[in-house]
Amino acid sequence: MSETHNTAKTRFVEVDGVRYAYRRFGTATRTPVVFLQHFRGGLDNWDPNVTDGLAKDRPVILFNNAGVASSGGDPADTVTGMARHVIAFVDALGLKKVDLLGFSLGGFVAQQVVLESPDLIRHVILAGTGPQGGEGMDHMPPKVVEHATREKPILEDFLYLFFSQSETSQAAGRAFWERRHTRLDQDVPSSVAAMGAQGNAIAAWGIVPQLDRYASLRRIKHPVLVVNGADDIMVPTINSFILQQRIPNATLVIYPDSGHGAIFQYPELFVSHARLFLEGERRGY
Amino acid sequence: MSETHNTAKTRFVEVDGVRYAYRRFGTATRTPVVFLQHFRGGLDNWDPNVTDGLAKDRPVILFNNAGVASSGGDPADTVTGMARHVIAFVDALGLKKVDLLGFSLGGFVAQQVVLESPDLIRHVILAGTGPQGGEGMDHMPPKVVEHATREKPILEDFLYLFFSQSETSQAAGRAFWERRHTRLDQDVPSSVAAMGAQGNAIAAWGIVPQLDRYASLRRIKHPVLVVNGADDIMVPTINSFILQQRIPNATLVIYPDSGHGAIFQYPELFVSHARLFLEGERRGY
Repeated sequence: MSETHNTAKTRFVEVDGVRYAYRRFGTATRTPVVFLQHFRGGLDNWDPNVTDGLAKDRPVILFNNAGVASSGGDPADTVTGMARHVIAFVDALGLKKVDLLGFSLGGFVAQQVVLESPDLIRHVILAGTGPQGGEGMDHMPPKVVEHATREKPILEDFLYLFFSQSETSQAAGRAFWERRHTRLDQDVPSSVAAMGAQGNAIAAWGIVPQLDRYASLRRIKHPVLVVNGADDIMVPTINSFILQQRIPNATLVIYPDSGHGAIFQYPELFVSHARLFLEGERRGY
Repeated sequence: MSETHNTAKTRFVEVDGVRYAYRRFGTATRTPVVFLQHFRGGLDNWDPNVTDGLAKDRPVILFNNAGVASSGGDPADTVTGMARHVIAFVDALGLKKVDLLGFSLGGFVAQQVVLESPDLIRHVILAGTGPQGGEGMDHMPPKVVEHATREKPILEDFLYLFFSQSETSQAAGRAFWERRHTRLDQDVPSSVAAMGAQGNAIAAWGIVPQLDRYASLRRIKHPVLVVNGADDIMVPTINSFILQQRIPNATLVIYPDSGHGAIFQYPELFVSHARLFLEGERRGY
């Protein structure tokens, strides 16, 4: 396929009355990577340097969960509900095995998809995310909430939430913002209802369980690549270390001078790391 | 140069009456990487897949500190003393700028070299190591001490100390052991005196300071790559996370199902990660 991040048409597939929006591009070889997006984000919240970078040697599928951005249906208000939509969507495309790249809330959903449907998944990338009931995930600082819930998100929200406060990181944030707006027909923003439902899912995921914290992580037997910035103010970075320590076959990469959106600050380096990871099986590690 | 790990002659350079042993091979282009070895280790305790892998596009210099293995002189009994030998050695070779790869004790020394002589160093790789006064670095489990201090170290010591107890990791350990013995004229073992001096240096480095723990890490302004295995029983893995969090420009990679010697378990993957890091400046990150 010669389509790219900026040219791939938004397509739809319907399952049980839910019309899921997605885009597919990249080469036809290898296992497709399904991208699962952050709180309120849609098809155009990804970095074209990441998506096109991975699409060079595998199919890339960007996906809006039910009720999010251009997808129809009611937004799920639990991570499990979102995971079931992902599974229904992948099944509807007729795919028997996919890789997942879950960012933030999308990383919660990716973990749940693996637990619900382990045979459907080959490799998993978890970016800027954390385990159920992770450290400091049961609350968010008021300023984070303020930026994350602005009715119409602006550049300053992303610069604050996704990047570190250094000049370098802020400049990288502005460059990301420009890249992600180069596509002409941008996906529609998510509704206020979607924000509410996702907010509920995130709050429930953050609750620290009374017993056997992190038990589910041991059940993830897949190769997992955990990545984050050095100082993530949305999902504290220590949670990336915890994911690595508890998931039996997990690799960790933490990038310097960066935050929640580190994969958009170092897109080329992240793509190099992701490709080494995704190709690992072939190379024997 | 067409010499390799197995063919490069052991050379010597003398400074102030100390005759340092080293080997140099690899291409003549780019910044040389000076390898700083672990407790008691000499020129042949490295993995040829790591050294030859990095030597493909840069000079590699393996080095024995004073009094270690085939080097002459008295072994230093402090990390600072060892760092000064490294600086004297690099100066004696006429090199104005080098990269460092410090493994375990060699990683303590690498940090100290950077602090003592920042302009001499470009990039630093810290493998299986930790900061001065790091977590759990003020003592070692008795079984670790027993394996680490055997008069003539054997395969079982390395399998216990450097690898995880899984079948995969143990098999990787045996493969490493074979690779590292493929060179015919092996470096001599370190003396008991060297073991004692290095043991004192390690013990002093492990003491938790009363004030301003980790303060020196903030003074390291160089690009640093920190790597380790998921469960290092010699220098607990949390210290790799601490190094990344405290050194301003540090990247962290942690490998799954592995220990202290993770770079010898995943030599090709580590070389890929190291090359991305060492070439980062050229690529703009």
